[in-house]
Amino acid sequence: MINKNNKAVLITIGDELLIGQTIDTNSAWIAQALNKIGIAVLQRIAVGDESQAIQEALDAAIAKAKFVFITGGLGPTADDITKPLLCNYFKGSLIRNKEVEEHITAIFTKRNRPILERNLKQADVPDNCKVLFNQLGTAPGMWFEKDHSIIIALPGVPFEMMGIVTNEVLPKLKKLVTDHFIIHETVITAGQGESFLAEKLIAFENKIPTDIKLAYLPSPGIVKLRLTGQSTNQAALQQKILTFKEELIYLLKDSIVALEDKTLDKIVSESLSNNHLTIGLAESCTGGYIAHLLTQHVGASQLLKGSLVCYQNEIKQRILGISAEDINTYGVYSETIATKMAYAAKELLGASIGIGISGKLSEDPIQSEIATGTIFISVVTNKHQIHQKILSLYDRERNKEVAAQAALLLIWKIIQKELA
Amino acid sequence: MINKNNKAVLITIGDELLIGQTIDTNSAWIAQALNKIGIAVLQRIAVGDESQAIQEALDAAIAKAKFVFITGGLGPTADDITKPLLCNYFKGSLIRNKEVEEHITAIFTKRNRPILERNLKQADVPDNCKVLFNQLGTAPGMWFEKDHSIIIALPGVPFEMMGIVTNEVLPKLKKLVTDHFIIHETVITAGQGESFLAEKLIAFENKIPTDIKLAYLPSPGIVKLRLTGQSTNQAALQQKILTFKEELIYLLKDSIVALEDKTLDKIVSESLSNNHLTIGLAESCTGGYIAHLLTQHVGASQLLKGSLVCYQNEIKQRILGISAEDINTYGVYSETIATKMAYAAKELLGASIGIGISGKLSEDPIQSEIATGTIFISVVTNKHQIHQKILSLYDRERNKEVAAQAALLLIWKIIQKELA
Repeated sequence: MINKNNKAVLITIGDELLIGQTIDTNSAWIAQALNKIGIAVLQRIAVGDESQAIQEALDAAIAKAKFVFITGGLGPTADDITKPLLCNYFKGSLIRNKEVEEHITAIFTKRNRPILERNLKQADVPDNCKVLFNQLGTAPGMWFEKDHSIIIALPGVPFEMMGIVTNEVLPKLKKLVTDHFIIHETVITAGQGESFLAEKLIAFENKIPTDIKLAYLPSPGIVKLRLTGQSTNQAALQQKILTFKEELIYLLKDSIVALEDKTLDKIVSESLSNNHLTIGLAESCTGGYIAHLLTQHVGASQLLKGSLVCYQNEIKQRILGISAEDINTYGVYSETIATKMAYAAKELLGASIGIGISGKLSEDPIQSEIATGTIFISVVTNKHQIHQKILSLYDRERNKEVAAQAALLLIWKIIQKELA
Repeated sequence: MINKNNKAVLITIGDELLIGQTIDTNSAWIAQALNKIGIAVLQRIAVGDESQAIQEALDAAIAKAKFVFITGGLGPTADDITKPLLCNYFKGSLIRNKEVEEHITAIFTKRNRPILERNLKQADVPDNCKVLFNQLGTAPGMWFEKDHSIIIALPGVPFEMMGIVTNEVLPKLKKLVTDHFIIHETVITAGQGESFLAEKLIAFENKIPTDIKLAYLPSPGIVKLRLTGQSTNQAALQQKILTFKEELIYLLKDSIVALEDKTLDKIVSESLSNNHLTIGLAESCTGGYIAHLLTQHVGASQLLKGSLVCYQNEIKQRILGISAEDINTYGVYSETIATKMAYAAKELLGASIGIGISGKLSEDPIQSEIATGTIFISVVTNKHQIHQKILSLYDRERNKEVAAQAALLLIWKIIQKELA
């Protein structure tokens, strides 16, 4: 018999997933949450709003995994078929849950909206499930048990799903998984491709035991290296992985920008904040994207003075005070203009670091002699300047991402220079 | 025997997908591309870098679907196991492909980087596959055939995968699928919840035939309604779906903001562009996110004058000219300040529409008497003003999304007023 312990399968339900109308972010979040309490995800599967496909996925998941998570299809409209299907699959009958009914009524009363019978029906739950209370929405989660597996059905709306998992599911699962641990340790490198890193790590890879896995995760500007292990002995596993991580850091020391799994915007934000530095941006081609990335984090107001998104030449003149003559002489896509933008942002916004970024992300009517994908970035402080010219040969969206990640890396580099 | 025709299964490979380190965007893109040529995706499945799991997924997929897509695991490092595994699964031997080898050599020469043997090894392909040339990267795609199914293996890097599918795969598949059509038609509504819309559509839903599906897709600020059908007769299906779509538009006319599946930023961009209007933003809590959304689209420089991301009070004073007295009197989170920001943006940036947005996305040290999640948005033109106060009770990320989507909807509304 298969050992199902500590294993999970995630099933997401919805035609929108199969036609590419929405991107599934729930599975990644659930996987992270489960790993933290020692549960490994074997498989993720997405099926449509179709009874037979859902039942087959359930049968297969229950055969393999102790924990089965189902998201989606619990809404109030006719295309939401998960609840009656689960009721039938687990051979229960729908009964109205009073607590959920009161909660739904309270939500609609608070919002001053009429309550429809289809809303109250969301309080109907199979009589053979435990109800998982949904503080943030109207569709409750459901906990079923079958063939030594636990099946947890959740609404697909991300923040509702997260609320139920955090408040209702994880505390219960933690008590069930006490003898299995999963540890991931990630370091982040920049400036070298994965092949180059792998060459440096040949001896290291030969040395790591088979129960520890090393993974390479390249993305624009960076490569993440992840060590993963599973064990019944948490302390020993932790010790072992940290020892290998230290060696990894030693071997790659010139390329390392972070010692844990974080985005570059988070790394830069922390570095600015820890060193009481502030930044001011003049963004042209990134169009506010860098400011957006930095303001995702709590405390952004302490380090980001602002960003002047100057998408047109006229605005670069009016807001940043860059002369029409300079734009004509050097071209709007040039190191000189990017540098002038950086200094203007620094001065106008009163920041310790100024960033200027100007480039051509896709074909446009301006300055057509410049190759599409050419991007100029300048980062300046009172003491230092760093410049980079990039030729990013992808589509508009990816060129923007490349530009923003490169700018973040330059900010990180100038902080190191300031601290040196 | 199962009819596998016109059906696809998508398999994504990588431990990073099972531990939640990356989000799978490839599957959605492939699904859209396949639907357009009449291929329906039955199932998406994500498995780890683990032989047995990959083989089981392949067996199951080949049994069900004529077309099986595999992405991931084709890189140059030891954790990339897909290619040797497929070679073994399809009982081939690896041989060096000269054309791919030359392509790899050319890429490294152009980038002025040394070529490693592990890079050249990417030119090794099973001798029983058709090579799918990868113009944008080093790992080629592979086309296998087994049990009347076509199995297509692709690198996981999104733009490389997209290049191969567009240039190499779709032209071949189009010739194989000539008698099956899938049509999706979407309308976008704003201002009403899905339950409310569903009540208005009870008679409509009873009337649509079983071969046409209606789906409700709610997200912050909007609900998408999608009609989907499949048929061997393209013209008849098109006609039928468009007739129901027209009725849907008629029934929901007061709530409709778009007649096809687009993001609000795309809808607003087109509306601005078509009417020769320009916008200028003063973004506080959205931190450049609205400007970022608008600059995703080609032609943004024609409609977006700029965004002044003023994250601190001092910068609101210095850049936008809002007085410290006003900030003290009304509070930085207030309709008055948002309105002053909107006018300042309009004037400073010389735009026909000005937007001001100020709010408290998460706990912060400023003005703690204001409830977290309170957001003020003002949109102004020479003739009109629209204001909205929102209380968004989610986390920082979602509150920002709610604020941006609400602002885009107000821009859309003020355009309608201008045109009225």
